Amino acid sequence: MESNRLEAFSDGVLAIIITVMVLELKGPGGPDLADLWHNSGPGLLTYVLSFVYIGIYWNNHHHLFHIAKRVTGSVMWANLHLLFWLSLYPFTTSWMDDTSLARTPTVVYGVNLLAAAIAYYVLQLTILRQPESGETLRAVLGSDVKGKASPVLYLVGIGLAFVQPWLGLIPYALVALMWLVPDRRVERYLRATSASGAGRRGPAD
Amino acid sequence: MESNRLEAFSDGVLAIIITVMVLELKGPGGPDLADLWHNSGPGLLTYVLSFVYIGIYWNNHHHLFHIAKRVTGSVMWANLHLLFWLSLYPFTTSWMDDTSLARTPTVVYGVNLLAAAIAYYVLQLTILRQPESGETLRAVLGSDVKGKASPVLYLVGIGLAFVQPWLGLIPYALVALMWLVPDRRVERYLRATSASGAGRRGPAD
Amino acid sequence: MESNRLEAFSDGVLAIIITVMVLELKGPGGPDLADLWHNSGPGLLTYVLSFVYIGIYWNNHHHLFHIAKRVTGSVMWANLHLLFWLSLYPFTTSWMDDTSLARTPTVVYGVNLLAAAIAYYVLQLTILRQPESGETLRAVLGSDVKGKASPVLYLVGIGLAFVQPWLGLIPYALVALMWLVPDRRVERYLRATSASGAGRRGPAD
Amino acid sequence: MESNRLEAFSDGVLAIIITVMVLELKGPGGPDLADLWHNSGPGLLTYVLSFVYIGIYWNNHHHLFHIAKRVTGSVMWANLHLLFWLSLYPFTTSWMDDTSLARTPTVVYGVNLLAAAIAYYVLQLTILRQPESGETLRAVLGSDVKGKASPVLYLVGIGLAFVQPWLGLIPYALVALMWLVPDRRVERYLRATSASGAGRRGPAD
Repeated sequence: MESNRLEAFSDGVLAIIITVMVLELKGPGGPDLADLWHNSGPGLLTYVLSFVYIGIYWNNHHHLFHIAKRVTGSVMWANLHLLFWLSLYPFTTSWMDDTSLARTPTVVYGVNLLAAAIAYYVLQLTILRQPESGETLRAVLGSDVKGKASPVLYLVGIGLAFVQPWLGLIPYALVALMWLVPDRRVERYLRATSASGAGRRGPAD
Repeated sequence: MESNRLEAFSDGVLAIIITVMVLELKGPGGPDLADLWHNSGPGLLTYVLSFVYIGIYWNNHHHLFHIAKRVTGSVMWANLHLLFWLSLYPFTTSWMDDTSLARTPTVVYGVNLLAAAIAYYVLQLTILRQPESGETLRAVLGSDVKGKASPVLYLVGIGLAFVQPWLGLIPYALVALMWLVPDRRVERYLRATSASGAGRRGPAD
Repeated sequence: MESNRLEAFSDGVLAIIITVMVLELKGPGGPDLADLWHNSGPGLLTYVLSFVYIGIYWNNHHHLFHIAKRVTGSVMWANLHLLFWLSLYPFTTSWMDDTSLARTPTVVYGVNLLAAAIAYYVLQLTILRQPESGETLRAVLGSDVKGKASPVLYLVGIGLAFVQPWLGLIPYALVALMWLVPDRRVERYLRATSASGAGRRGPAD
Repeated sequence: MESNRLEAFSDGVLAIIITVMVLELKGPGGPDLADLWHNSGPGLLTYVLSFVYIGIYWNNHHHLFHIAKRVTGSVMWANLHLLFWLSLYPFTTSWMDDTSLARTPTVVYGVNLLAAAIAYYVLQLTILRQPESGETLRAVLGSDVKGKASPVLYLVGIGLAFVQPWLGLIPYALVALMWLVPDRRVERYLRATSASGAGRRGPAD
């Protein structure tokens, strides 16, 4: 089984999630900048945050399946499991907006972020267990500091959100910022192996 | 006619169906967990169910067109027929949610599930009749126990829903669970034929 | 310029149009079959009609760009022009439903169908003028009876809708039925050229 | 990293943006042409405008990544940045419609157009800095008159919208018209290099 169609399907789902959140944005309800700021402002801010998250997942997903070229049934379901949690982002994002950052919705948003991070981790583990691509992925990931720090930061955010909702948004945003720095591991690995002539891909690729 | 574009179009439709159901979810309407549970709880549960169904169809569709590499006009229409019934999932799912699992909506949901299962069966038959891929598909499907058990379970669910709506959901969920166990027939077949050297696809594939 | 990306983009737009119409369906608003019939019935019927139309356009588009493998800027804009009219189907369909088949909305729906048919014709003309694929397309299209009959039937439908709205739906549905019979011209042509050894595509294709 | 998946993802997002705007259109709310004209008329006009913009971006994006066949992390994020601003079109378009072309919404719409133009420019710059495709892109772009005139026209439109909202729409529409003339630079360049035998792509491409 090649990964092309899994990638195409995931791209479709991610593209829709990222765009659908705009539909959930409350309109300003009036012609003034103050209306935009008061009614749509918080929604726009959390939209930016969720857009960046989905963008990050798309980037990482792209890199992951650049290595895992062939997929099994387990990879397919691990991938659908990830897409499930990501598909709830518009729902939890709009709940947080509708309640103007109330405590429970901000905690639930963090739990959603955490669940997606765990689902991504499970997907990564599933690919690591594959004989064909596991070894390459292990070499590329290295110590995977970002992958390990993210769930910890989400947990910190969830804890802070119990104290004060907007405090919880700080660790959430930190995770996004951390990943925004482009992950050059895959690019570096590919360059290294092609330089040493170990690349398994020809020039016609 | 190659199947690439048919797969891409179906992926697009399935990706949208799976995501659009989130838009149909009722918001909690309040800042508490109790609001989430009472107002969005049933919707989230049936969302999970419908998400899993669409995921199963995507998986099976993926396997089916891995074998049927070339398609005719009849395959195209059999595929659109399947997509039609799947496209009604968000509609029937949200009716069931809005009425808090009333009798008729739960029966209609089961009829929708049954209609999609029949449409998938017709699509499979259409491919089986193709000279090129029919034989391979027949070998891969084997006795097709799951394919035959699904409509029977849906009918049982529809019957039970007449007695007590939530009872009907049990056979519906059983079908989903049955298919969640990854279907290794195609993978096994591909491995077997490539081991015996009978695979028609080269390593560059 | 290859047509792959134009096809992928059009597939995306068509997949969304076909699915989005489900979102526009009015819910039954009650738990009984009578609610489904009275409130969602007309919507479901016109949904089927519009679903079939988009399916037909997808099929024909698929065949068209199977021949026109390379595209120019004019083809791109002719294609976007077609997508524009198709993207209005959910809008005109739901107006017709909301007004329970009132005269003007049914006429406007017919005008939308007619505009899309003309846009498809213009797209076909644009490809016919291309040196590379024009000749093949001309041979495949033949006398193009269906392509010429469709706008005439739409005009008849628009005329009848002025007299009595539901009468207009009959010619609209006739066009759909006419195209539902799979168009074997492209398949036949491909088989003929490959039999005579004139096919320009190798077995690795 | 190849650009295929980036193109597929962008196509998905653009296809959804272009279609989602139809969902935001206000229904006519009555069965007469006057209802269509008064309630949906302005929405339809700005829909046409935004549809054309997204179509233009898709066309230009298509040409851009026809040259930039390989992408880095920076290109990915520059691309997501562009998609972010384009994803706000449905939001700003519907604000302008809901307020019947009030001053602030028309200015904000112009700012959105300007931001997307700047994001496109940044994406172009990022690709220009790549050793592999930068040189080709520079040759193709030439003096890039359209790319430089667009932000200026948007600024003029924003200024005019402060005086009189509908006046601002004139420069906005001028940009669209300017780009509607198909950009033949890439096609011309490809023809020139293939004529001189300098094309790096073979006939099997």
